[in-house]
Amino acid sequence: MNAVCLLSGGMDSTTLAYLAADMGYRIFGLHFNYGQRTEAKERACAKTIALFLNAEEFLEVDLSYLRKIGQSSLTDHALPVDSYREDREGVPNTYVPFRNANLLAIATSYAEARGADAIFIGVQSQDYSGYPDCRPAFIDAFQRAIDAGTRDETHIRLLAPFINMTKKDILNEGLRLGVPYEHTWSCYSNQETACGICGACHFRLAAFSALGIKDPIPYSEQK
Amino acid sequence: MNAVCLLSGGMDSTTLAYLAADMGYRIFGLHFNYGQRTEAKERACAKTIALFLNAEEFLEVDLSYLRKIGQSSLTDHALPVDSYREDREGVPNTYVPFRNANLLAIATSYAEARGADAIFIGVQSQDYSGYPDCRPAFIDAFQRAIDAGTRDETHIRLLAPFINMTKKDILNEGLRLGVPYEHTWSCYSNQETACGICGACHFRLAAFSALGIKDPIPYSEQK
Repeated sequence: MNAVCLLSGGMDSTTLAYLAADMGYRIFGLHFNYGQRTEAKERACAKTIALFLNAEEFLEVDLSYLRKIGQSSLTDHALPVDSYREDREGVPNTYVPFRNANLLAIATSYAEARGADAIFIGVQSQDYSGYPDCRPAFIDAFQRAIDAGTRDETHIRLLAPFINMTKKDILNEGLRLGVPYEHTWSCYSNQETACGICGACHFRLAAFSALGIKDPIPYSEQK
Repeated sequence: MNAVCLLSGGMDSTTLAYLAADMGYRIFGLHFNYGQRTEAKERACAKTIALFLNAEEFLEVDLSYLRKIGQSSLTDHALPVDSYREDREGVPNTYVPFRNANLLAIATSYAEARGADAIFIGVQSQDYSGYPDCRPAFIDAFQRAIDAGTRDETHIRLLAPFINMTKKDILNEGLRLGVPYEHTWSCYSNQETACGICGACHFRLAAFSALGIKDPIPYSEQK
């Protein structure tokens, strides 16, 4: 069994790739550069994980057009990154319009070309409830688009098993699988060490804290 | 009203952009380079059409990763392009796996970022009945993915009005709209003049012939 695994370099996709390998899938790693602030760190982590998992291939895809399209603080470096705030309403400004559809379209092309049986995407709707392209309804709709838009003999299952799990539960699963979290990067800000205050750091730290263990990466500041 | 119009440089997308402009839409032209053999000619045609239609923007997106993914004679120049044959079964080797989902995901990101109301795609299931990502069921499924995966306040209509039309009917509509077909390119082979024998030339020539008019572009050979 072959699986395309989206590897962002973050905790969730790394844990999911370890789960896919544990399930017996051969891994085709897929990493995206879309001009996000922390690309160099993310790529280094994703490549290391692909190496650890003996991936068949590691495909890097440049989506710098997302920067030309703009409208997100992740790709437009003139916009400051929204910090995490519990009382925020609506979609955070880190949302890259319809980004996950771009990622999944490429993953499907790759999976169909390689005859892969599955695509693993580590989306998780609890943390980023503001992102419309992380919702279960979107993943379901995309599965139907895959079924309708690929060859009749192609059968690709879109697997997002973490979508309704908390980050704490994902971390727990990852610890069982022996995921080397020191080789993952979550922070949205591009500093030497993770900022500790953006939304991504907030949820990561909360997960480690909930399990009573220390995150192995260094932080410049912690709330 | 704003519309993202996919402009490949071919007859169908050009006719559709003229139709969108005729309906009163301001045009945001979107052109893709995915390492296809005839990219230079296609881009020149698409840009000319955007200029003629007074487009608000003309965004070019590089999808050269489709070449890395391979498995199509359009992007893998070592594979010969399938000629048109009426008795061919299955999907022609010009199929680029799940290509239209890649194009539509980008079009949706662009449309959401610019607040556009519609996306016009000139797919047409009659000619390329072998392409799974040109089927009406795929377009319908992708509309549902757009609805589920964009902001709640975003409303983008995916319009593919040519999907059940014949190329003859599309051409007829284009002649009514004054489409300058001398600035369109359809041929799959990269020669000075259109080859006249590939699937794309076959259907184009048949449409002109059915209406009893001469295609304004030159051909090196005609069956």
